Amino acid sequence: MTVELICVGTELLLGNIVNTNAAYLAEKCAGLGLSCYFQTVVGDNAERLSLVLRTAMERSDIVILSGGLGPTEDDLTKEVAAQVCGRELIMDEASRRAIAEFFEKRGTVPTENNWKQAMMPAEAIVLENHNGTAPGAIIETEEAKVVLLPGPPNELFPLFEESVEPYLRKLTHQMICSQTVKVCGLGESKVETLVKDLIDGQTNPTIATYAKTGEVHIRVTAAAEDRKAANKLIKPMVKELKARFGNSIYTTEDDTTLEKAVADLLIANDLSLTCAESCTGGLLSGRIINVPGVSEAYKAGYITYSNKAKRRLLGVKKTTLQKHGAVSEQVAEEMAKGAALFAKADVSVAVTGIAGPDGGTEEKPVGLVYIACCVKGKVTVKRYQFSGNRGKVRESAVSAALSLLRSCILEYFSKVTFGKKD
Amino acid sequence: MTVELICVGTELLLGNIVNTNAAYLAEKCAGLGLSCYFQTVVGDNAERLSLVLRTAMERSDIVILSGGLGPTEDDLTKEVAAQVCGRELIMDEASRRAIAEFFEKRGTVPTENNWKQAMMPAEAIVLENHNGTAPGAIIETEEAKVVLLPGPPNELFPLFEESVEPYLRKLTHQMICSQTVKVCGLGESKVETLVKDLIDGQTNPTIATYAKTGEVHIRVTAAAEDRKAANKLIKPMVKELKARFGNSIYTTEDDTTLEKAVADLLIANDLSLTCAESCTGGLLSGRIINVPGVSEAYKAGYITYSNKAKRRLLGVKKTTLQKHGAVSEQVAEEMAKGAALFAKADVSVAVTGIAGPDGGTEEKPVGLVYIACCVKGKVTVKRYQFSGNRGKVRESAVSAALSLLRSCILEYFSKVTFGKKD
Repeated sequence: MTVELICVGTELLLGNIVNTNAAYLAEKCAGLGLSCYFQTVVGDNAERLSLVLRTAMERSDIVILSGGLGPTEDDLTKEVAAQVCGRELIMDEASRRAIAEFFEKRGTVPTENNWKQAMMPAEAIVLENHNGTAPGAIIETEEAKVVLLPGPPNELFPLFEESVEPYLRKLTHQMICSQTVKVCGLGESKVETLVKDLIDGQTNPTIATYAKTGEVHIRVTAAAEDRKAANKLIKPMVKELKARFGNSIYTTEDDTTLEKAVADLLIANDLSLTCAESCTGGLLSGRIINVPGVSEAYKAGYITYSNKAKRRLLGVKKTTLQKHGAVSEQVAEEMAKGAALFAKADVSVAVTGIAGPDGGTEEKPVGLVYIACCVKGKVTVKRYQFSGNRGKVRESAVSAALSLLRSCILEYFSKVTFGKKD
Repeated sequence: MTVELICVGTELLLGNIVNTNAAYLAEKCAGLGLSCYFQTVVGDNAERLSLVLRTAMERSDIVILSGGLGPTEDDLTKEVAAQVCGRELIMDEASRRAIAEFFEKRGTVPTENNWKQAMMPAEAIVLENHNGTAPGAIIETEEAKVVLLPGPPNELFPLFEESVEPYLRKLTHQMICSQTVKVCGLGESKVETLVKDLIDGQTNPTIATYAKTGEVHIRVTAAAEDRKAANKLIKPMVKELKARFGNSIYTTEDDTTLEKAVADLLIANDLSLTCAESCTGGLLSGRIINVPGVSEAYKAGYITYSNKAKRRLLGVKKTTLQKHGAVSEQVAEEMAKGAALFAKADVSVAVTGIAGPDGGTEEKPVGLVYIACCVKGKVTVKRYQFSGNRGKVRESAVSAALSLLRSCILEYFSKVTFGKKD
């Protein structure tokens, strides 16, 4: 069963607001097993809206419109939808009463325009709106079900969940489930090459790769009659991916980020963490601290942007800075060691690099970053060459630091375990 | 002249990501005086993408597509666009070299897939991508100009500004100029109320407000035969806005961010800055350090997430923490004073708050943040109550800290000047 979204509003066409309604509705519909192939944004214009709605009704089973149900002259979604579906607008008694009550409660008087909101397409299913004055509606035609929803997210979201979701659930017969396998430390095309045969041979489940900064997500999606059957289809594919990517997979849970995986690893092993940041200047700590509950592992961090700060806060030697420069393997190592020492942390990570746009040389170009990771005294330093503007270099460095941190901790424990076995 | 946006990506149709590209491109196009009547989202599917592109080319002068230029099998925007425009794909030497260099620099080897990104539609204008491996392209046909851009925002935004904006500017016969007046420290509805009469009475120039986290941008746009005439229309409106908003305006330059305005203010007054961050955990420093050249002012910073770190790194008193709690006016003040002292900085800013989702109480709910700013020994502390999730609270706190920092420095100097005059 297919669904199509039409978001109505000049403010979307002007870029004044981001279309969060589309993302919300799309995610909800995907969860209901509906296939969505098109989303359209159109302004408050009868002719163009009518064109878009007709096209959508021809090619999709369900069309969900949001926006344009307000009381003003501009708002004409209901009028256009009624016309396209060949229905008259008639006064809906329940809606009229609800509007009267809404204003009574607030101690204000509705304007003439407000009553317009109680006019509904004939034979439509009226959807009560508990958070505003514009009711929603479902018009069932032979061609398609047309769902009309108010634009403000704080009205649309609850109205969808209360009235539209149960309606759509009854319409659909199959369940779509997906699971995301998240890989770090490998590039998108490398990942793609490793799963090419799976993508080429895919039917149900399907798999798709999504590139993020410093990581790649592989989504496995299955369609089945219920959640259990869908999960049964997904499981062997996830197992296959685990066999192929091993430790590069940091999670198979949708809501686990790389920083959450790192935080979980630290907390599970009772390790405290500190960061010493030069070019990333706080972004790495900022990202780690976005994980709720990370205070169990992360206590303190240092932003040492100047050479003096590297010396004073982290004890980096003056001679090391002079001999090798601030962006060097040696300084990264001393930063990591110093941070661990001063913060009394089990694990530390230090980042020093040239984010640009200036400061690059032939020998040390913009984008050169050294990251050092110290786990219980054992230091690993890696050299990276990132590209892009200042923001991109810094963002890439943060992701690389998280990946390195994760692999150093895993390596430390694999050796510890190995040593114990011996 | 009309423009139409097509965003390509299954992620958008599944609602995995919010379509920020559409909002960005729409805002940019509006600023260029282009009328946008339709935006479409479609998946990585040749047939449907082809249908959508044909429709767009029939009804609009310019069609901008984003996404689907990556190296994987899924990515087929370029292939479909070339086919719809009747062009072959040929190897673009410059793009091939750029890709080779990109990988050489990183010390990695491109896979077979990567070379696909150097195949460009014949006679297309190739747009160099400095932040990724997928070049953009402009295909000029009799029907429409078709612009192909990469999907990742950190590639799309700079590529658009470097190459597409100047191209579109040449196409439009009328000169559309705009200037953005950026206001901080005032809410969106407050700003709207203050300019409502100007918006209601607008013809040329027009004005529009855009809400950002912690700031509001007021864009003044004028159409005229040339830049000089347009600027002549803009100038009195900007003057009027300056009269209405005074010091709340931090810049009237498009490429000046709030952090850049703060950095400029520090450098111009030869002031050094340090930050002490608890709930923002590095994000404030990270944002300030994104300003190139800020090393003149910012040397060192502290992330003091635990109470112990607040005591050890900043000298916050144990009794203060016990008596008032970590999220309090008193602790914020001691953090700011301690940071200034230990970093030997002229100015310091400290942030402590409850970002959530846990840790809130009736008395101190999630979203409560104290920000202290110390300018040459004079401390100002402000209490804020933000809403939204953990990420939103932290982002709001960072913006508020920058606003407060700016106003404290301005206030300090206005008093110094006043003192001198007396």
